[in-house]
Amino acid sequence: MTVDAISWHGDRLSLLDQRRLPDHIERLDYRNASDTASAITDMVVRGAPAIGITAAYAVVLAYDAWLASPDANGRAQFETDLETLGQARPTAVNLGWSISRMRSVLGARDAPDPEMRDRLAREAVAIHEEDVAANRRMGELGTALIEGGPCTVMTHCNAGALATGGIGTALGVVRAGFSAGRIAHVLAGETRPWLQGARLTAFELVEEGIPVSLVADGAASYAMAAQDVRWVIVGADRVVANGDVANKIGTYSLAVSARHHGVKFMVVAPTSTIDMTIAEGASIPIEERAGDELIKVGDRQVAPSAASVWNPVFDVTPATLVDALVTERGVIEQPNREKLAELMRDLA
Amino acid sequence: MTVDAISWHGDRLSLLDQRRLPDHIERLDYRNASDTASAITDMVVRGAPAIGITAAYAVVLAYDAWLASPDANGRAQFETDLETLGQARPTAVNLGWSISRMRSVLGARDAPDPEMRDRLAREAVAIHEEDVAANRRMGELGTALIEGGPCTVMTHCNAGALATGGIGTALGVVRAGFSAGRIAHVLAGETRPWLQGARLTAFELVEEGIPVSLVADGAASYAMAAQDVRWVIVGADRVVANGDVANKIGTYSLAVSARHHGVKFMVVAPTSTIDMTIAEGASIPIEERAGDELIKVGDRQVAPSAASVWNPVFDVTPATLVDALVTERGVIEQPNREKLAELMRDLA
Repeated sequence: MTVDAISWHGDRLSLLDQRRLPDHIERLDYRNASDTASAITDMVVRGAPAIGITAAYAVVLAYDAWLASPDANGRAQFETDLETLGQARPTAVNLGWSISRMRSVLGARDAPDPEMRDRLAREAVAIHEEDVAANRRMGELGTALIEGGPCTVMTHCNAGALATGGIGTALGVVRAGFSAGRIAHVLAGETRPWLQGARLTAFELVEEGIPVSLVADGAASYAMAAQDVRWVIVGADRVVANGDVANKIGTYSLAVSARHHGVKFMVVAPTSTIDMTIAEGASIPIEERAGDELIKVGDRQVAPSAASVWNPVFDVTPATLVDALVTERGVIEQPNREKLAELMRDLA
Repeated sequence: MTVDAISWHGDRLSLLDQRRLPDHIERLDYRNASDTASAITDMVVRGAPAIGITAAYAVVLAYDAWLASPDANGRAQFETDLETLGQARPTAVNLGWSISRMRSVLGARDAPDPEMRDRLAREAVAIHEEDVAANRRMGELGTALIEGGPCTVMTHCNAGALATGGIGTALGVVRAGFSAGRIAHVLAGETRPWLQGARLTAFELVEEGIPVSLVADGAASYAMAAQDVRWVIVGADRVVANGDVANKIGTYSLAVSARHHGVKFMVVAPTSTIDMTIAEGASIPIEERAGDELIKVGDRQVAPSAASVWNPVFDVTPATLVDALVTERGVIEQPNREKLAELMRDLA
């Protein structure tokens, strides 16, 4: 992949501004945690694993600020920073997972010190590198599920290099499956309102030379009826204990339609996306964003200001519609509570 | 309704430019058939019944040109004009239906005459007025199907005043159902790529004071799972002999999802939209429009130019997913070949 969504430079974090892709390739530098939290909220960086990695580095930046002001105020600010980071977006569990993991390195401390700073930085880098490795492993495991000759698959939103530290979750499987000759063609739903499919997924796949056709989200069912789509492959923002999956709005429509058409449905997500503390999908916090995301397109007002908007940006796909959950620890077919408990047994 | 999509002024046709709504309300005048055909192709006017009415008036304009040049060239041009009109858009059958009806008034003629011109103009006005009456009747019939207390319904694209000569097909039922206290709230899918739901349906309903919430097309299934949606109500561009329905891309996804959630699915279409010459949906010509409709949003390029686009702008919903077909001649529940043949028995 030619672009890195997230680059760590030891004392600052560089993020590719995903709001401006594909027509502007611009990087923004972050040197403190609160600006980084805003970058997550404002979607400079997005995608559950990428948000987790970004938050880990932001904890290091917050610690740097405490090192520079090692008094009670500095400590209070550090706690505030971690709180702000944790609330930057609600649905992707990787954010909280990553901050918890950084906290467990930190332990309980009254004063900051440079040695701990190095340990935190190493942990953030480890979180990043583990995600790269998880992507590769999931790419292999997902590819192995795709039987028969080269096929068409459909994806939604962007679960690619731009959403992760590595080659992507869903798009990791697409990359590996294309290399292996199992996938010939990708249908990418444009993914309103933010158009991640058009702006990010089509961009990534064109760069890699993987044949991709963009479709309107509403065309997905017709594509399944009219074309030889064999798998829908998506990422996830949170998978809960019974296997229900929160992912970008529109995912659930694809899952319903896939089942109707006998198309298989694959969710590709590292274990950092699995939240065993929530029993079922109905309890996942679903972010609703501003109505302006639908009322305006660019500078143009496309709907009357007086219209209400319902703009949930994630939805929940029940486990019963998922044929395969691909993680770096293995594949679960027809996920359920027992199988997830088994997969996650040795993890914190 | 405060706006007329189509106004006939005796010697010219005035169309509300629907490409510019809702932020610009501008009318364009047409005095010849080929410009009117371009207006249909370019979607100045859209919606199956509105296209049919527009074509009828355009036949009068073509006849006026023949009257002004009553020689062999004039006659050849008249035939060319009718041919061009018939090919302006492929999917909505009302276009061909309307031109056929005008031709049957015309009969076989070698020379134009003013008396025939008056008959043609009266026929075009009759087509327009019949559509107004059909809308009202379908509004009553559709409303009668909505049982129980005030409910939420979902619609797609724009099947309203802007798509017809009157109060609309699907939105005719919404208007009548709201007046009767059966409908409390409308979810309007924004309808990519052309955003007819945002630009036209939300505009119409806000003007009428009917509560409307705009949703991304991908949010439809989640809305059916999370909200109390009782009916999906849509229009149609062509209903064929077995009851299969061509309508705006995304309609089929809604039908699949409605069935999955136990939500009922209503198609509202006058008999001018029913094409008994086609046996089943697979034979309906489905228009594909330029990829730029997805590659660009306004002036901004949102996907790489090298990405392919699959942009079918209609899809086919099988009759088995339709709970009710509402026409001005009556309602067919669970439409099939026999019931449609019975409904259409006495019609040409």
